[in-house]
Amino acid sequence: MVERLQDFSRLAIHTMTFKRLDLRTIVSLFQKHGVPGITVWREHIHDIGLGEAKQILRDSSLKVVSLCRGGFFPSASAIEREKACVETMKAMDEAKEIGAPLLVLVCGAEPGLPLAEARQQILDGIQKVLPHAKSLQLCLGIEPLHPMYADDRSAINTLEQANNIVTAIHSEWVGIVLDVYHLWWEPWLQSEIMRAERKIMAFHVSDWKTPTTHLLNDRGMMGEGCIPIRQIRAWAEQAGFRGFIEVEIFSERYWNSPPDEFIQRIKDAYLRYV
Amino acid sequence: MVERLQDFSRLAIHTMTFKRLDLRTIVSLFQKHGVPGITVWREHIHDIGLGEAKQILRDSSLKVVSLCRGGFFPSASAIEREKACVETMKAMDEAKEIGAPLLVLVCGAEPGLPLAEARQQILDGIQKVLPHAKSLQLCLGIEPLHPMYADDRSAINTLEQANNIVTAIHSEWVGIVLDVYHLWWEPWLQSEIMRAERKIMAFHVSDWKTPTTHLLNDRGMMGEGCIPIRQIRAWAEQAGFRGFIEVEIFSERYWNSPPDEFIQRIKDAYLRYV
Repeated sequence: MVERLQDFSRLAIHTMTFKRLDLRTIVSLFQKHGVPGITVWREHIHDIGLGEAKQILRDSSLKVVSLCRGGFFPSASAIEREKACVETMKAMDEAKEIGAPLLVLVCGAEPGLPLAEARQQILDGIQKVLPHAKSLQLCLGIEPLHPMYADDRSAINTLEQANNIVTAIHSEWVGIVLDVYHLWWEPWLQSEIMRAERKIMAFHVSDWKTPTTHLLNDRGMMGEGCIPIRQIRAWAEQAGFRGFIEVEIFSERYWNSPPDEFIQRIKDAYLRYV
Repeated sequence: MVERLQDFSRLAIHTMTFKRLDLRTIVSLFQKHGVPGITVWREHIHDIGLGEAKQILRDSSLKVVSLCRGGFFPSASAIEREKACVETMKAMDEAKEIGAPLLVLVCGAEPGLPLAEARQQILDGIQKVLPHAKSLQLCLGIEPLHPMYADDRSAINTLEQANNIVTAIHSEWVGIVLDVYHLWWEPWLQSEIMRAERKIMAFHVSDWKTPTTHLLNDRGMMGEGCIPIRQIRAWAEQAGFRGFIEVEIFSERYWNSPPDEFIQRIKDAYLRYV
């Protein structure tokens, strides 16, 4: 049996979980409620500018867990592929500026571009930006996305695929972002988590609701759905993961709820279901 | 390069593609438009009764390709699991009655029931109904469903999993239903299709639209989306598949369109994109 979490020392929340708020308000909210970790989305930086974002985070007691997100490598156009690499390197610079040790990569896909080509372009793209990551001493985390996003968000749809890329690239700076929402259904999830071992660089939680009414913005609170979150956390910890547990919920319903109530629900669900 | 289809001799359409029409109307429509094959959903039989359905199909020139659907094996309750087997055997009897050589199995899943258990229960369920299939000389086709249906429709979500089950069961009466909508994203789809070989008992087509606005009823017409349908057909044929190509489109949009126009669009898309 897996033990419950006893306190909030490993709790982090994504700024996108509070999509409608600005970074300053989010940081205050997290501090008020004793949430120690934050994963910052670039949208929340760009709204106010990097300088101000950096200042807000530095003045806070929050630990910046990661920056979301770089990647989106594949394209039928070589110019677009080059742009994606440049943009990802820019995101790396931002990550370094705000003190994030990790940039999350959503690898990308393009409708009509064959998945086999997209997958090769992703490998090529990561290789291309890797020297910049090394020079910054910044980790890159490949986040496999659910297969329902294989059309336009990511051609990397299983942990097995992500593990294969990480194995192929063979760099201490490239690892895995494990999100239970994307991977809970994967047939050999347990063994792929053990295979990933210390390469697991981040762990995201939310839940899969039945029914799910929207492909993007109907994620559930932990405990509202069918994902065996605690079991998957146990596997990740067996594999050696000791980092933050990041709550990443895209939900029109929660985005429209009062932030103080929502964050309290997150904390309750965190202890009960994670 | 893969050749286009030259005629409609291998075209079949699912009755559920015309969900709002009754079986008699659907059969007339298919005959009027020169569609030679039909896959019948049980809903369309039960609306009018098995006797009348059988009569309508026998009086037509249509070839019944398969009956949809049995399965839904997993449950936390042993009584429910038993019921699912009984219902699946009843579906087999109906298949035999209407002259369908194949019953499509949607294997089932139950929110909260661990997927590993659901997967074992599916294997057990198929083993349980297999003697009945043998006695009827009826094929059972395991249809892996897209991972977005792993919560409540099927715990079998990749061709690889389905191939593993078929290998384990090792019976001439159990094979694969390959639906491009469910499997197009699968990382090693080509090699799993070759592995399935002559075990491919049916081939379903539709398309994945970007964006997809509903998890169940927003499938696209062939050519409207990103699925490399012709490529996947070519692989299936390399593997030895020579059967009907079945158009299975669940779409509120098309269900609300005039049937004659819709079927003409299907025929056009069939020659252009399949």
